[in-house]
Amino acid sequence: MTGKPEDSLIAMRTMRMAKILGENVRKTRLKRGMTLEALATEVGLAYSYMGGIERGQKNPTLDVVERIASALDIEPVSLLSRPEE
Amino acid sequence: MTGKPEDSLIAMRTMRMAKILGENVRKTRLKRGMTLEALATEVGLAYSYMGGIERGQKNPTLDVVERIASALDIEPVSLLSRPEE
Repeated sequence: MTGKPEDSLIAMRTMRMAKILGENVRKTRLKRGMTLEALATEVGLAYSYMGGIERGQKNPTLDVVERIASALDIEPVSLLSRPEE
Repeated sequence: MTGKPEDSLIAMRTMRMAKILGENVRKTRLKRGMTLEALATEVGLAYSYMGGIERGQKNPTLDVVERIASALDIEPVSLLSRPEE
């Protein structure tokens, strides 16, 4: 990570929400007994992109977060809350 | 809103998170005594785009939500929680 120190700080923070989202999506999906493929299809996303979201490697928009929440029948903000919260 | 009924439903739901974000950003910004211009500059967004976010008319990515939260010194998920939560 070249660039200013605070870039990596921001990058690290940026990863935080994406990581939290990924863990929550995966946990909820498995709880619902859904495959990654089924969730991707229902949300209207490519399988690979959906996998990237679960690995915390994507930067989705609020609209995508809401569509995933709707497919998992959960409140969108719950997908963005740290598990212990 | 032409198209299938559920499109408007999804559109309505999609607006929800954007609306919640906008209200929370505006309320927190005013509490911090920041101008819209100052917030836009700190986050690195155009003034007009920042105004659109506050009006709930934009569909930002998680990265943008985190940068706004960082500028307002608040947890990102708090900006996405309904005010009474």
